[in-house]
Amino acid sequence: MAEESAAPLAGVTVIDLTRVLAGPYCTMVLSDLGARVIKVEVPGTGDDSRSIGPFTEDGRSAYFMSLNRGKESIALDLKAPDDRQVLMDLLAGADVLVENYRGGTMEKLGLGWDVLEPRFPRLIYAAVSGFGHSGPYMKRAAYDMVVQAMGGVMSLTGHPGGPPTRVGSSIGDITAGMFLTIGVNAALYRRERTGRGGKIDVSMLDSQVAILENAIARYVTTGQVPGPLGARHPSITPFEAFATADGHVVIAAGNDGLFRRLAETLGRADLARREEFLSNEARTRNQPALKQEIEAALQAAGTEEWLRRLDAAGIPSGPINDVAAVLDDPQVRARNMVVSADDGAGGRMRMAGNPIKFSDMADPDSRGRPPALDEHGAAIRAALRAGKD
Amino acid sequence: MAEESAAPLAGVTVIDLTRVLAGPYCTMVLSDLGARVIKVEVPGTGDDSRSIGPFTEDGRSAYFMSLNRGKESIALDLKAPDDRQVLMDLLAGADVLVENYRGGTMEKLGLGWDVLEPRFPRLIYAAVSGFGHSGPYMKRAAYDMVVQAMGGVMSLTGHPGGPPTRVGSSIGDITAGMFLTIGVNAALYRRERTGRGGKIDVSMLDSQVAILENAIARYVTTGQVPGPLGARHPSITPFEAFATADGHVVIAAGNDGLFRRLAETLGRADLARREEFLSNEARTRNQPALKQEIEAALQAAGTEEWLRRLDAAGIPSGPINDVAAVLDDPQVRARNMVVSADDGAGGRMRMAGNPIKFSDMADPDSRGRPPALDEHGAAIRAALRAGKD
Repeated sequence: MAEESAAPLAGVTVIDLTRVLAGPYCTMVLSDLGARVIKVEVPGTGDDSRSIGPFTEDGRSAYFMSLNRGKESIALDLKAPDDRQVLMDLLAGADVLVENYRGGTMEKLGLGWDVLEPRFPRLIYAAVSGFGHSGPYMKRAAYDMVVQAMGGVMSLTGHPGGPPTRVGSSIGDITAGMFLTIGVNAALYRRERTGRGGKIDVSMLDSQVAILENAIARYVTTGQVPGPLGARHPSITPFEAFATADGHVVIAAGNDGLFRRLAETLGRADLARREEFLSNEARTRNQPALKQEIEAALQAAGTEEWLRRLDAAGIPSGPINDVAAVLDDPQVRARNMVVSADDGAGGRMRMAGNPIKFSDMADPDSRGRPPALDEHGAAIRAALRAGKD
Repeated sequence: MAEESAAPLAGVTVIDLTRVLAGPYCTMVLSDLGARVIKVEVPGTGDDSRSIGPFTEDGRSAYFMSLNRGKESIALDLKAPDDRQVLMDLLAGADVLVENYRGGTMEKLGLGWDVLEPRFPRLIYAAVSGFGHSGPYMKRAAYDMVVQAMGGVMSLTGHPGGPPTRVGSSIGDITAGMFLTIGVNAALYRRERTGRGGKIDVSMLDSQVAILENAIARYVTTGQVPGPLGARHPSITPFEAFATADGHVVIAAGNDGLFRRLAETLGRADLARREEFLSNEARTRNQPALKQEIEAALQAAGTEEWLRRLDAAGIPSGPINDVAAVLDDPQVRARNMVVSADDGAGGRMRMAGNPIKFSDMADPDSRGRPPALDEHGAAIRAALRAGKD
């Protein structure tokens, strides 16, 4: 490994007008990669997520804290001339502007790309919204739940015949924030070569379509509309959750060799020789019968014992961990995926770390304190005044 | 809008050793942003996903095609000296190397970062694996199903007391591929400033932890282990799927104003005045009672009629679309999120488009043909020879 060098986005300044999740997730990742993020909040209440639980004992939002570690906060009323001027001064020194209003809002504020581009041609204007800045739904608001439903992932999640099921994490927001981050970094790279910024327009609905994966291929190839599949993979078998004597284990035996080894480990080597289970295609066609055979064999022991045997045989497998188990997992800990930040009240708040590990960038297990509303406002205003003198 | 300019990653060459999903997803996004992707495949069989269904009538994998549009293919046996030399020659002219072997495999092949960095100090080496290149599980293989289970998202998905439920799209692979793409673009930006490449190590398990969102905040704040929540949000109410007279509708009334408007639209303005529903916190505490009231009111009409009324009232809401409905949605089409590629047999294959829309980059609705195995091998070898002369 080389010695430590600058974080990849060191020196990049991001002006962050976003609230709640998709936008703040993007600027959190940018911050983790070394950017300076100045969070612009509504005076008085600030980011809506400050009033979304869970709350700490002294009434501050742990949800807000987990998304805004290490950012600076300034309260600005974008409709007040003085505060608008502060925003303009900030943009003059910034590299990236991120916003997650619904389509058309920035134009109404007089802050659309048509206004900003002539003034700040090197600025990267990054927008994430429910439906994007074009198309018939562009002015509609959306939340995670809505785009999970409209984007198709809910139609694939859950059990056949069962009630509608949401993905238990807000992937509608988070994947959109991630695609926006990809775009911001690509635009930063391009600007180094061309000197020009640009606008990036990511929508939560588009992002859901982009992660439908093989469901689209299945539909356009067969004409059959994919439905929910419970806990299994649509075209790889065995690749699902199975009941053991005392719980569940997930097994992913994705090819013939692994399936043979699995059959041996289960004490049922015969399964790999049976014609209806000879190929992945055959196993997928006969999935219910195969599942029955596997679960019958798994009744001989509990989850922990099976995980030991499966791991010894080199078969991809794992437990269904709850959040407590995840945070205690030795691999998760070894990878520094649980970090903490000063909670501003003498304690420390644990949160997820940065999954993008660079060989030559520090990955501290302590992150910057989430800001109080307008905590950095006076200092930022003073610095802008000093810059003008 | 400015006139069209170069795609952000124009001129970037990616050598792609990856198979199936996490890695190919990353290089697909890089390709969509303008990079040239040279896919290195095992001679004979190629990328494993070539043998994973669904298949076209002439037996080619639609799954493979949807992930590898616009890439070039060369078959190389990385254990054969001549072919290794071809890889080294390719790396000498490349910007990025992407691989998704399990941890330690590249070192065994003599292609670890310790070997490559001294020879190619400007190279960006991007690795995505099940568990990452460090920690106790580093040499274990993982598939999407395994990291969905071990990473906690399955513990949050499904219905209380119900069977284990997998997210219906392979978000274990896809989010890891996306984090890797964020890292690659950040490293490209840094290289423009420092002249140095670097190694990026992303794991599927880490990526799952990074998207657990408020589940971690809930656990560390309250000590209670979050469980599955069916189709609702854990801390915003009403924010879930509700039954209508003939189906379901999703409603996300995320604040008091929206809740008042929802209550009026339902003909139940009284709900917004009742003490147990006065604040989001109270509504979340009394979610079962509120759901019952809302569903009783929704029985008065069918889904389509309710969607019309809710939209007219400006309440974030939507249908639970299946994949067929998603591909036909007017917004999805207006945003060019369904594109197609030549299927190599005289037809066209539909697939998801690029969700990262740049103001000044073309977003064609036709994408490059997915390559046949080794289709570009001869041309690539000839170009390398010509470069040496």
